[in-house]
Amino acid sequence: MRKILTVVLPGMMMVLIILSIFGSPQGIRQHQNSSIPINEILKKLDRLEGRLNQLLDTVFRLKKRPNSLPTIYIVTPTYKRLEQIPELTRLAQTLVNVPNIHWIVADDTNTTNPQVIHLLKRIHLPYTYLLTPMPQEFKKELARPKGVANRNGGMEWIRAHATEGVLYFADDDNTYDIQIFEEMRYTRVVSMFPVGLLTEAGLSTPVLKDGRFIGWYDGWIGGRKFPVDMAGFAVSVPFLLTVPKAKMPYTAGMEETGFLSSLNITTDQIEFLADNCTQIYVWHTKTHKNNPASRNILLPEYNGTNLRILQEVMTIKEDS
Amino acid sequence: MRKILTVVLPGMMMVLIILSIFGSPQGIRQHQNSSIPINEILKKLDRLEGRLNQLLDTVFRLKKRPNSLPTIYIVTPTYKRLEQIPELTRLAQTLVNVPNIHWIVADDTNTTNPQVIHLLKRIHLPYTYLLTPMPQEFKKELARPKGVANRNGGMEWIRAHATEGVLYFADDDNTYDIQIFEEMRYTRVVSMFPVGLLTEAGLSTPVLKDGRFIGWYDGWIGGRKFPVDMAGFAVSVPFLLTVPKAKMPYTAGMEETGFLSSLNITTDQIEFLADNCTQIYVWHTKTHKNNPASRNILLPEYNGTNLRILQEVMTIKEDS
Repeated sequence: MRKILTVVLPGMMMVLIILSIFGSPQGIRQHQNSSIPINEILKKLDRLEGRLNQLLDTVFRLKKRPNSLPTIYIVTPTYKRLEQIPELTRLAQTLVNVPNIHWIVADDTNTTNPQVIHLLKRIHLPYTYLLTPMPQEFKKELARPKGVANRNGGMEWIRAHATEGVLYFADDDNTYDIQIFEEMRYTRVVSMFPVGLLTEAGLSTPVLKDGRFIGWYDGWIGGRKFPVDMAGFAVSVPFLLTVPKAKMPYTAGMEETGFLSSLNITTDQIEFLADNCTQIYVWHTKTHKNNPASRNILLPEYNGTNLRILQEVMTIKEDS
Repeated sequence: MRKILTVVLPGMMMVLIILSIFGSPQGIRQHQNSSIPINEILKKLDRLEGRLNQLLDTVFRLKKRPNSLPTIYIVTPTYKRLEQIPELTRLAQTLVNVPNIHWIVADDTNTTNPQVIHLLKRIHLPYTYLLTPMPQEFKKELARPKGVANRNGGMEWIRAHATEGVLYFADDDNTYDIQIFEEMRYTRVVSMFPVGLLTEAGLSTPVLKDGRFIGWYDGWIGGRKFPVDMAGFAVSVPFLLTVPKAKMPYTAGMEETGFLSSLNITTDQIEFLADNCTQIYVWHTKTHKNNPASRNILLPEYNGTNLRILQEVMTIKEDS
C-alpha cells in the first residue's frame, strides 16, 4: 500500500500539474469562440495521455507481478497446546506479508479446533485446514515422530491440488524473515539455506567453498545423508510430482534425510540460496512450554466475571 | 494493496475507455486540418477530467485515512543476544501490518548495533533507534531492573517529539495479535487488557463483573497497587504529557505498578478493552535462550567457506 502510493502518487501529481497547465475544460469552453491554437491542445493531450499510460503501467505492473509469481505452499504442522494460537497468530501475521502463498495448516488431531478455524478465517490468507492425526501405532514410541502425519498429509493435498510452485515445511514456532520466501520461490528441484539458532552448533547449513558444496555443518550429523533441518530446504512442486513415492518416514530424527533421500536427488541438484548460504533468514526459535493454569479459577468469587470466559484458553490440554 | 487495486483499477479502466472513445491525440493531429467539432473535444475533456478527479480522490482518500488515525508509539526494549535479530524481525513483520505506528527501539547498549540498524532500515516502518544502556549502579543488583532505562528513554523521546497518540511497551519476545493495537488506539487515559501465558496463573487480567472492575487476577499480586504485566496496558500520550514526572522505577518487579502509580490514576479512569477483558490479543511468550556456538568453527577446514561469514552471528555474546 505504502509502495503503491509512493510510486503512484508522484505520477498522479504530474497529472494534476499537467491538468493545471492545461487549465480546466470549462476554462477552454469560455474561450471557444476566440482563437485557441488547436496544436496547443493536442500537445497537452499528448502529454496527458503519456502520463496516464505511465500511471496505468505502474498500477498494472504492481497488480500483475504478484499474480504471476509461483505459489509457495507452506505446510505447517501444529498441535493443540496453550501456545498454539499465539504461535499460529505470529506466523500468520508474517505470512500475510508474502504474496502468492497458500498456507496448509495440518493439525495433529481427530477433531477440528474451532480456535484454529477462527484464526484462519480472520487472517486474509488462502489456506487449507487439514486434520492429520498421528497414527495410533506411533504414539507408543519413545521418540514420537511428531509432525510426520501432518507433513505427509500436506504433501498429499499438494499432489492432489497443485501443479506449480514450491513446497516448504514451516513449523509454527520458528522465525521467518519474509526474505526467505522470495529466496525459495523459484526453486527448480530442491533449494537449501542456513537455519539459525540450532543446537549447540549455533546453526545448520550446507558448507560452501567458492560457491561449491563441500559438506554439512549441523549439531548432529548422525550418519544422515542430508543432515539438515526441516526449515532449511524447499522443494519444487513440479519436481515433487515427478516422484510420486516421495514421503517422510515415521522415524524421529530421520524425517528430513529420509524425505530428501526419497526424492532421489544428488547434492549437484541442490540450489544453495541466501547469498551462497551466508545469510540467515530463518531461525529455529523455541518457545517455552506453559502448563495449564494451576490456580483454582473456579472459585465462587469469580462467578459472573470475565475469568469464566477466559478459563477455556487458560486450561487447554494437549491431546495425548 | 488488494483494496487499492480493486478500487482504483475500475477507475483506471474508465479512463482507458474514455481515452479510446476520444481516440489518440496522434489520430486527431492527422485530421487537424479537417473539420473536428471543438465542442466534441471539450465534452470529452470534461469527462476525462471528471474521471481523473474521481481517481485522485480515491487514491488520496485511501492515503489519508490511515494518517488521521492516532499514532501508536511502540517502545520496545531490547538487548544484544543471539535471539535479538530473530525476535525483532518477527515483531517488525507484525508491526508492518499496523497503520500509523512509530516504533521506538531502545537498545540496552552503549554502542549502536549495526545488525539492528540494518533490520530497521530494511523494514518500511517509521522508527527511532535509541541507545539506552542500564546505568552502571543497577548492574550490581541481584535482580537487575532490565528494560527500565530503555522504557524511560523511549518515554523521554515521546515527551520531546509527540503530541498525540498512545504509548505501548512491547517487549520483543511477546506475541501480538494486531487487533490489540486497534483496541488501544483511542485510549483516553490508561487502557488495560488481558495478557496470556503468564505465570502458573495462566494469564494476567483485570477482573470484571457485569463490565465493572472488581479486582486483579495475576500470578503475583505481591502487594502491588497495579498487579499487571508490562504488555497489559497502554497510555494516552496527551495524558502522559500532563504528568511530566511520571516514570518507571529501577526496581525489578515493581516497574509496572511503580509507573502506573506515578501517573496518579484511579481504577475508575481505566478503560477495559478487548471485549471487557474477555479476549486475549497479547501473549507473554518466552523464547528459549541459546548459548553462543560451542563448536570450534575456526577449524582450518572451514577457511574460505560461508561458515567464516556466519561465525559472527553464531557467537554473539550478551553485553555484561
